[in-house]
Formats: sequence, structure tokens, C-alpha cells
Amino acid sequence: MRLALPRISKRALLLGLPMSGHSPAGGSPDSVGDLARVGVVTVSDRASSGEYADLSGPEVLAFLEEALDSEWQAEVRVVPDERTLVEQTLIELVDDIGCCLVITTGGTGPAPRDITPDATAAVCDRILPGFGEQMRAISLRHVPTAILSRQIGGTRGSCLILNLPGAPKAIRETIDEVFPAVPYCIDLVGGPYIETTDGPWSAWRPPHARR
Amino acid sequence: MRLALPRISKRALLLGLPMSGHSPAGGSPDSVGDLARVGVVTVSDRASSGEYADLSGPEVLAFLEEALDSEWQAEVRVVPDERTLVEQTLIELVDDIGCCLVITTGGTGPAPRDITPDATAAVCDRILPGFGEQMRAISLRHVPTAILSRQIGGTRGSCLILNLPGAPKAIRETIDEVFPAVPYCIDLVGGPYIETTDGPWSAWRPPHARR
Amino acid sequence: MRLALPRISKRALLLGLPMSGHSPAGGSPDSVGDLARVGVVTVSDRASSGEYADLSGPEVLAFLEEALDSEWQAEVRVVPDERTLVEQTLIELVDDIGCCLVITTGGTGPAPRDITPDATAAVCDRILPGFGEQMRAISLRHVPTAILSRQIGGTRGSCLILNLPGAPKAIRETIDEVFPAVPYCIDLVGGPYIETTDGPWSAWRPPHARR
Repeated sequence: MRLALPRISKRALLLGLPMSGHSPAGGSPDSVGDLARVGVVTVSDRASSGEYADLSGPEVLAFLEEALDSEWQAEVRVVPDERTLVEQTLIELVDDIGCCLVITTGGTGPAPRDITPDATAAVCDRILPGFGEQMRAISLRHVPTAILSRQIGGTRGSCLILNLPGAPKAIRETIDEVFPAVPYCIDLVGGPYIETTDGPWSAWRPPHARR
Repeated sequence: MRLALPRISKRALLLGLPMSGHSPAGGSPDSVGDLARVGVVTVSDRASSGEYADLSGPEVLAFLEEALDSEWQAEVRVVPDERTLVEQTLIELVDDIGCCLVITTGGTGPAPRDITPDATAAVCDRILPGFGEQMRAISLRHVPTAILSRQIGGTRGSCLILNLPGAPKAIRETIDEVFPAVPYCIDLVGGPYIETTDGPWSAWRPPHARR
Repeated sequence: MRLALPRISKRALLLGLPMSGHSPAGGSPDSVGDLARVGVVTVSDRASSGEYADLSGPEVLAFLEEALDSEWQAEVRVVPDERTLVEQTLIELVDDIGCCLVITTGGTGPAPRDITPDATAAVCDRILPGFGEQMRAISLRHVPTAILSRQIGGTRGSCLILNLPGAPKAIRETIDEVFPAVPYCIDLVGGPYIETTDGPWSAWRPPHARR
């Protein structure tokens, strides 16, 4: 079932909706057990100015709502394609809010205003090149211009940051397939233990890492 | 139909043939509508010294002749495997001649004289990692040593620069398959609108970007 | 036939077994014809402290024993996940011992102690991005968390350095498939001419490069 907007469930304490502003969120993820704070950042001049409605952020939230089974909380941002702003947003979500996962959408192409991967690389300690490679390979099955995407994944401290494409359809095509590796990645960098629902996105962990 | 040498058509004003020297080309691409200036750079010590005939550059020209349907003009260079010379050639083709596409052939392997990707990276504003990934994946279907290619794609201003392998057979295997994304990439960086003939290389653009 | 420990053959002068210490090895590879010195480096805190037995290094040696047909000699090291130590070990194996191939296992993930790709990148003159891409693509057929591997391949002088995963099963899955390109790569950077046995790992060279 695909949702245009996230369901509000008991598990998901969705703060910060609608898609703007700062979500109050105190403390560290450790203080509430395995609560996972997840940043969702739409990078788009036109969505941030209100020229059109953001469909990408809600698509990511709908995915998270469907896929996550342990407790989580969304931190939603919509920012223009300004590299400094995107960097500041990512740093705030990781360092101040304590997100263990930040998913961006948009701004990954070759156009001069596309700066999301550059901002992401600038704030990451480490790049995980497999994410960019596999997400492009997945999208190439659907559209030849997927080769143009510069999207990356990387870690900053105990957080995984992933760039997704901006088109809602492309978001689900890619995240469904790469998400199985995301919870174990977050384990490895010291984040909370995330559990998933049954689906193509279900977490995979080596036997010794399963709780 | 594969051609060892490019046909001279009404559309293609092939300057600079045979494969050396500077092609006189004034003005900006904008001044002649959607004319696309395309640089074709053979990087090879032996071809540039005349030790053997350049077969790679003509193979690229034959592809362009077959694939491009809007007006275009070739700028052909044959240079030795000298990094500074390759960088200068690329810069001249982009900044002085106004090319919107530069295709290099040769010099992409691990041998000490192979410096084409290094020169390309040095002059590009941005790398588009999908081109290197996909071109290697394509060539790997044909030969296991394709894993050794360091070929990249990237943009400098309003120009896309692509490294192709040196072997004529490998040139067509890769460019036929990645070319559908090339015209839209050039659109996105502000170059001319390129139209293509029907074939596996036909341009793909999202509906909103089609004229 | 898969071996837990390498057979000692007439061809393979395996020095340095068991898996620690320095193997005396004088002279240059040229001085003994096409003798290939191959470094095998297990990067693991627990294997190096003796907390558990190293299974990865022996798996690499078993592969080499099975796959190499020309004369070769192993240089085996087991080191903790310390970046400076790994860098020093790689430099020693290439610059002092004269290895033409160094294979590391372990330390390629996103965990803070995983530093093998970083140490490898730091000592390489050039990265060959195809190795990381293809090895991840191979492992992704087996396990979704292969996307998390940061493994790379690159050259330092006349030596190819390859990062393999730490799990013995994953070692064979990847090296069997990428090895066909390894001997020609070593040719191209000026190392010895390596011959292989028949198998999926058999060396492939373009006709002009075959002896």
C-alpha cells in the first residue's frame, strides 16, 4: 500500500508536520531506548518557496511509516538548493537533534543548482560508495538519465545520511531496495537498533548482530 | 551501419579533419541556434606521433555522424599521453571553442602513461560518477579487464566531458548505451538542445524537458 | 577444492607462516625471473591479539595456491585495525619487500574501527574504482549489507593493492570473479608476468599482451 501522506500511528510520533520549521526534540536517542530520530530533508527551491507542494518529503515519510516497526520520530525540513543551508540543516539534524538516519530528496543532478551531494559529502566523515552505485543501478532499470545522478550515502558520527532522487516514484524504487542494509549500518556506527516490518525493505543483519 | 570514417553530411560541418590541428570556430554556440560543438580527443602517444593511424577518433566521429540529428560541428584533436597537454586541450575545447560535449578516447587504464581520467578530473567542476560506473559495467560484459578502466564523466561549465576506452570496438559498445542520457545532461548544464536519430543511442528526456 | 589452509607446493615458497611476523625476502622480483611476491594482510583487532584464529588470511592463501601457476611467494601479516599500522604494513610490503600484489582482508565496513580502505587509499598512487564497484556488485548478489563495504583497489608503484571482505566465504565469492583482470593489471604497472591455473579466476590478457 502506497500512501501519499503518512499515516499517524501510535509508533510514529511525527513532529514538525507540515513540512517546515523545527521540531522540538530533546535529549539523545539513548535516553529513550531505541527511539530512532529520522531526518527527512527536501532540497528544492520551489518546494521551499511554496511555488509547489513538496511531494518528495511525504513520500519518504510514507515509506518510513510503512517500513519501521520500532519507535521512531521524524524531523522534517524543506530547504532551498543552497549548499550552506543544506550543510547546516544536516549538521543540526545529526549533531543537535541526534538523528541516526537522514534522508534527503532532490538536488542530486548535474544542474548548477543541484548541490545536495556536495553538501552531504562536506558534512560526512565517511562516504559509503555502495549506496550511490546501487541506487543509480536501480534507477537505471527505469530511466537512462539515472546515470546523471550524483547521489551518495555517508556517515557523520552515529548517523547515516542518504541522498534520494527528487521524483516520488524514484524515491520508492530506490529506498525499498537499499533499505535492508540501513538498520545494520546504523548498528555499526553506534545508533539505535531499528526493527522493520515485513517487505522488500526488511532489515538484514548477520546472525551475530540480531537481537 | 558502422563507418570507419565519418560521412560528410549536410548537417555535420566537420572541421579540422584530418585528425590534427586547430579548427577555426568563432562565436558562441548560442549565435547559431542549437549548433553543438563536439570535441573529439584521441589521447595516444603512438597515434599523435604518427606511429600508427588513429582509429579511435574516427570511430567516435562515425558514432556522432550516425546518432546526431541536430546541427553539430566536430573539433578533433590527437594528443600524446601528457597530462598537462590533455588538460590544456580540454580547457581550450570547452572555454575557447565552446564545446558542449567533449569525448576522449584512450589513456584510461592503470599504466603509468594513462592519464586521461586524471586530466579530466582536474578540469571538471563536477564528476558524474554514474558514467564511469555504467561504462565499466557495460564493458565488463565483454572483457574482464574492463574493471581496470578509470574512465570518468564530468562537467566543466556548460560542457559534458566523457572518457571512452581506446579500442574502437569498446567505444561503440559503451557510447551506444550511455548516450541516451547525454543530451539531457547538456540541457541541464546550459548547453544547446541536441536531437538524435533513432537507435539505441536516442536521447531520453523527461516529458517536461522535451521541445 | 577449497582449503582451510594452504597446501605447501613446489611452486609456492610460502614464507612467514604461521600468520605473523616478517618474512625474510631479499632482492627484487626481477632477480628471480617472474617470481611474484604477494602480500596477504589480515586487518583485525581480534585476530592480531589472538582473541580468535585468523581464517581470512588462510582463505586468501588457499585461493592463491589454487589459482597461481607461475612462481610466487607469500608475505603474510596480521595487524590490528590501526590506520597507521596498516599503512606502514602496506608500504613495507610494496616498497621494501617488492610485492606486486597485496590482498587485504577485513576492516572495510562503516564501523569506526574499520580503516582498511582509508589506509589503502592513503598509500595508493591511483585508485581503480572498478574493483570496489564490481566486488560490491558481486557480494550484493549474496547479501544486501554488501552495499556497506568501502573496499577499494589501487596501485602503488608496480603493485596492485586489493581490499577483500573479512568473511572467508565472501573472500572466495569476490576474488574468484575479479582475479582474471589482476595479472594484466600487474603487467601494466610493470610487475612480473603471472600465470594462472584453469578456473573462473584464469588470467585474461588481450592477445598482444600474451606471452
